[in-house]
Amino acid sequence: MARHVNIAGAQLGPIARNESRQSVVARMIEMLREAHSRGAEVVVFPELALTSFFPRWWMENQDDVDAFFEREMPSAATRPLFETAQELGIGFYLGYAELAVEDGTPKHYNTAILVDRSGTIVGKYRKVHLPGHADHRPHMPYQHLEKHYFDVGDLGFDSWDFAGGKFGMAICNDRRWPETYRVMALKGAEVVVLGYNTPTHIPWEPVYDHLSAFHNHLCMQAGAYQNSMYVVGVAKAGPEEGSNLLAGSCIIAPSGEIVAMAATSGDEVFAAKCDLDICLYNRKAMFNFAEHRQVQHYGIITAHPGSER
Amino acid sequence: MARHVNIAGAQLGPIARNESRQSVVARMIEMLREAHSRGAEVVVFPELALTSFFPRWWMENQDDVDAFFEREMPSAATRPLFETAQELGIGFYLGYAELAVEDGTPKHYNTAILVDRSGTIVGKYRKVHLPGHADHRPHMPYQHLEKHYFDVGDLGFDSWDFAGGKFGMAICNDRRWPETYRVMALKGAEVVVLGYNTPTHIPWEPVYDHLSAFHNHLCMQAGAYQNSMYVVGVAKAGPEEGSNLLAGSCIIAPSGEIVAMAATSGDEVFAAKCDLDICLYNRKAMFNFAEHRQVQHYGIITAHPGSER
Repeated sequence: MARHVNIAGAQLGPIARNESRQSVVARMIEMLREAHSRGAEVVVFPELALTSFFPRWWMENQDDVDAFFEREMPSAATRPLFETAQELGIGFYLGYAELAVEDGTPKHYNTAILVDRSGTIVGKYRKVHLPGHADHRPHMPYQHLEKHYFDVGDLGFDSWDFAGGKFGMAICNDRRWPETYRVMALKGAEVVVLGYNTPTHIPWEPVYDHLSAFHNHLCMQAGAYQNSMYVVGVAKAGPEEGSNLLAGSCIIAPSGEIVAMAATSGDEVFAAKCDLDICLYNRKAMFNFAEHRQVQHYGIITAHPGSER
Repeated sequence: MARHVNIAGAQLGPIARNESRQSVVARMIEMLREAHSRGAEVVVFPELALTSFFPRWWMENQDDVDAFFEREMPSAATRPLFETAQELGIGFYLGYAELAVEDGTPKHYNTAILVDRSGTIVGKYRKVHLPGHADHRPHMPYQHLEKHYFDVGDLGFDSWDFAGGKFGMAICNDRRWPETYRVMALKGAEVVVLGYNTPTHIPWEPVYDHLSAFHNHLCMQAGAYQNSMYVVGVAKAGPEEGSNLLAGSCIIAPSGEIVAMAATSGDEVFAAKCDLDICLYNRKAMFNFAEHRQVQHYGIITAHPGSER
């Protein structure tokens, strides 16, 4: 018996530095309604979906930084999104900057949540693979200060019962690391949802700029195929405050094929009817993990981060 | 300073069940000479390059099985290959079925070796990820009995100083598993060479038959990009004893791009001048393992082979 779930991606175009959360949430609600009208049961929003991609700016004043973070979820500004989802009976994935106080210490995470059709947060993920740098590079046109502004996620990768299947979450740079998909597949994930903000020009290593769209899809397609899962990647896209962000948001089947894709660099809904039982094709055959994986030869993968060389 | 190595792939067309090793070696020597004439310093031959792909046949008599295995390397039949390589000053990768006696017990491995320009074997690898099945499936047009005829490789993945760089070896189905590339990258490999025999029709799971060429390249391209390494994949290709074998042999740069590829399903040499220093582009930036990998969240990858679910 097929287990179908209709999943939509809700790509966001640029968000200006001075655009309010209320304005962004209004854009998201409009896409939520469109997704619902097209039969979607789950909507995937981007990483850090509520504000401009602030790690591009070096900020000396911590209050300026913290202004981009959420202290509660939902907040007054984001509650209308939750209420609309509940009204429509539709679940969603949302990425945002999370300011949490743990044992009296402020912690900053690049976070994503899964919200079910009743408007309840059922899963939380904090980004594990923070890209970029921690130092100020004033000679560059913009920064990528995720290593400066965020703590490494402490929750690891997981999977949740959601929308009739098992869903895992990742964020942006996580998608380039094969460990991301593998850990979630081993935890039973059938769908990995993730948002991203990816500058198409990396000032400190521009040699692969022309390949950014190719690399984006390559990693997600390989992750989907090698782990027999759907992967849904959703961008904040387009020219945002002097940095062009990659579009190419898509839904990838367990075959590795792109089955739905955004065609613009702006606010755009795209959707696919996903049959979660397709995940079983290869999980029972070529990628039957229990039959084929040889963990006795993988030790170095978890032994230490860097190369022996 | 660039570190260039000119690498050739030597794809083999079909080998009939009754074709002698002498005949196959003559075909390989012809390609070795062509590769040398085109400036190659290293030639990569396929998996199980000396015989027909025998795991497609159920054989009850162990002597019939062992007839496909090599008891010594080089042997009388294969020595001319080693001698020609030495004469030309060219190194090579060769896949073959290895019968080793360990503590009085015969062990059967799907093996590959690296032979340097002086004709000396400098590295050996025994296939870790054995695909297929161990049981006889007489209702199918052919078998894939690697799990029946071979022992799981006991040497693990490694890398060797070779041809001015660090080379790692894999075989066929290994290329579908991201752990393969990751382990070798962590051991410093800059080039992974591998051979394959891949039926384009999988009788017990035909649902992805039409995607076999896509999947072949997808896995190797992702492995190359995500590990900042060259990947050289070389097929035994074409219609062989009732089974069509995938071609598409290629050389993939650390960008994930295919930079050389075979255009036929027969004996064919293709080559690329590889700059090993390109591997450093991403190893110093986006894929700086020591800076970005978070092994505290990868534990399940090495904990057990199968899914928790």
